[in-house]
Amino acid sequence: MLGGIEAGGTKFICGVGTGPDDLRTVQFPTTTPQATVEQAVAFFRAQEPVDAVGIGSFGPVELKTGHIAATPKPGWRDFDFAGTVRRALGVRVVFNTDVNAAALGEERWGAAQGLRDFMYVTVGTGIGAGAVANGELVYGLKHPEMGHVRIPHDLARDPFPGCCPFHGDCLEGLASGPAMQARWGCPSSELSPELPAWDLEAHYLALAVNNWACVLSPQRIVMGGGVMRMPGLIERIRTQWASILNGYMPASEIVPPLLGGRSGVLGALVLAERADS
Amino acid sequence: MLGGIEAGGTKFICGVGTGPDDLRTVQFPTTTPQATVEQAVAFFRAQEPVDAVGIGSFGPVELKTGHIAATPKPGWRDFDFAGTVRRALGVRVVFNTDVNAAALGEERWGAAQGLRDFMYVTVGTGIGAGAVANGELVYGLKHPEMGHVRIPHDLARDPFPGCCPFHGDCLEGLASGPAMQARWGCPSSELSPELPAWDLEAHYLALAVNNWACVLSPQRIVMGGGVMRMPGLIERIRTQWASILNGYMPASEIVPPLLGGRSGVLGALVLAERADS
Repeated sequence: MLGGIEAGGTKFICGVGTGPDDLRTVQFPTTTPQATVEQAVAFFRAQEPVDAVGIGSFGPVELKTGHIAATPKPGWRDFDFAGTVRRALGVRVVFNTDVNAAALGEERWGAAQGLRDFMYVTVGTGIGAGAVANGELVYGLKHPEMGHVRIPHDLARDPFPGCCPFHGDCLEGLASGPAMQARWGCPSSELSPELPAWDLEAHYLALAVNNWACVLSPQRIVMGGGVMRMPGLIERIRTQWASILNGYMPASEIVPPLLGGRSGVLGALVLAERADS
Repeated sequence: MLGGIEAGGTKFICGVGTGPDDLRTVQFPTTTPQATVEQAVAFFRAQEPVDAVGIGSFGPVELKTGHIAATPKPGWRDFDFAGTVRRALGVRVVFNTDVNAAALGEERWGAAQGLRDFMYVTVGTGIGAGAVANGELVYGLKHPEMGHVRIPHDLARDPFPGCCPFHGDCLEGLASGPAMQARWGCPSSELSPELPAWDLEAHYLALAVNNWACVLSPQRIVMGGGVMRMPGLIERIRTQWASILNGYMPASEIVPPLLGGRSGVLGALVLAERADS
């Protein structure tokens, strides 16, 4: 049996199983590293023994060592995430980013089946993406940080200065869930779909999609995360991107995840399989 | 013997040989497709017979068919480039983008030897890049169009509206050679390095480097092309990118091509080798 952890900035989802049909999950808020990992470990101990655990973690992370890196999230910087889980459960642990895990989940069972060039994007507490090019996850020097691309910011239309502690008005600073909350004074889920807030959000995400697609030219872009749950947002992004592209190159398909909120934890099971190799 | 063509928007470079040590080249301006390809064919006929020809072409291109696609360049749209060369010389032709060819040249003999994740960027008549991720060229749906990313454009500092016929103030519209010429009234090569024009240019290119690196996280970015010949420009891009990154993630190395103006034509020889496979 395999275990998976989707470690998000807001919540953890832990699961045991072999795929979507037999997956048993639990979820709880992300608090301190020690308390949150203890809850995960307790869940796995209460299930039948797992042979390996995959972790898809919020970032930035150090993939080689399984640590969290320079996150602004209090208490998590330099936390030995993979090592802590490995020692507590006594099993092999495969560590990757949350978005790489979700990309693997959607590739195996979801909206990216059979594709060799695609992205999985999350728009929520942060903005990030996992990319597969020529059938392989893209890592490079470390791992992509797609939420930190710079996009045009029309200060006359949107005087909000952005909320990224590193970059101010990078994409994440302008279009993440916390950015929407800081700009509009309430969580994005409470903003009615007809408000101009969503045109602005679609505009920023279309600019980001444009930049990602100019670099990777993916066949499909799967867009998930809390903010993407707003009805109609994906259609608005498609429309605004078509206007930005102006026919210059073929547009990648933009689709929601087929696995809904389970892309990450299911992808963590795919990671756990790799413990053998 | 192998032949290579680097087909640029401004000039063609044709070469015959096996590598940098024995390469014989000729170059001439890019005029109409027919006249320019005739000159290339005449060069190859005057050499010892070639077994295959590699072409690295300006874009956008249709890689599968070897055609030029929707270029604004007069006369070249829908031109059957690979087929015309194949029929004229009676040899196998391998067709790719100019920047993918240059990336292969720098990988084999230049600044990207031994790397599995890097980019070759040209900043000249247009702006484009070839990317290698996990040791393989990135294609995706078609091929990257990295010159058409959107970046912040501070209209107060730079009221020039951009000159991309498709997108106005995309990267290429703001920072290509023609953009510099239109904004400042003379070719970039005549702008003295101490002018503020070069701070602005470094700023735009640093924003682009940031966006590319957030997506691909390359180990190294090789930056060539006519505009990049300005002394000190690479150092200014490094400095401005460090300021933009603000320590958030490791910076990719930014270096000039080791093969100078021959990256593309040498890479076209690497393409020609692939005619056998």
